[in-house]
Amino acid sequence: MKLQEQWIVGFVDGEGCFHVGISKHPDMRVGHQVLPEFTVVQHKRDVQILHALKAYFGCGVVRSNHDDRMAFRVRGQDNLLRRIVPFFMEHPLKSGKRLDFLKFRRVLLMMESGDHLTADGLEKIRRLAAQMNRGRSR
Amino acid sequence: MKLQEQWIVGFVDGEGCFHVGISKHPDMRVGHQVLPEFTVVQHKRDVQILHALKAYFGCGVVRSNHDDRMAFRVRGQDNLLRRIVPFFMEHPLKSGKRLDFLKFRRVLLMMESGDHLTADGLEKIRRLAAQMNRGRSR
Repeated sequence: MKLQEQWIVGFVDGEGCFHVGISKHPDMRVGHQVLPEFTVVQHKRDVQILHALKAYFGCGVVRSNHDDRMAFRVRGQDNLLRRIVPFFMEHPLKSGKRLDFLKFRRVLLMMESGDHLTADGLEKIRRLAAQMNRGRSR
Repeated sequence: MKLQEQWIVGFVDGEGCFHVGISKHPDMRVGHQVLPEFTVVQHKRDVQILHALKAYFGCGVVRSNHDDRMAFRVRGQDNLLRRIVPFFMEHPLKSGKRLDFLKFRRVLLMMESGDHLTADGLEKIRRLAAQMNRGRSR
């Protein structure tokens, strides 16, 4: 399945999610790990779309999610900063999800500078993460 | 907001719904009314997308839905057959929703021939309608 750029933007405006998880991690200097991820979830009957997204972006994994649902998931600063972020900078989202994306990008740029390894930086990232994905059904 | 064709296809692959409602209607000869509709539901913060879809297709209404959600809804055989169906014939959906769309189109063509006004035709439409939107979360 060949995907066109604007189709991807429309589909992600509908089904995509930019999320920054923060979890306790005793091995990290600040005691927490920051885990940004981009996901698209679909019913398993449309799993070929998730594989097409994975092929298009050249990164990420397709895994089962809850129940009959599958997810395309991209983690890792390098994949996110070099492949996902540039795509959505070049092809802007049209929905309010664009604001989530811009916060997501800001977190990634902060992480690139190592801000997530300081208590101050982690607090800033925590505030940005809390502002994301509000008023959404998922 | 200017929408590109492929963006619309991607967004509808994610968020669109082709639905055929059948309700009791004592005034109709066969006792039932067939009500096909195309809808796209969004959180109210993205209502401008629904208005852009309405402007693009030149038909339909934007109305409030449940809770904080709004819907772009197109009803009426003429709007559906002359505006919605030709768009998705020219720009095919990529998800399993394409199968729903094709059944939806078949119901509309049957209605154009007046099949929904006979008991046999109504039964066929009922069977098609029951096969639509399976395995979906909404």
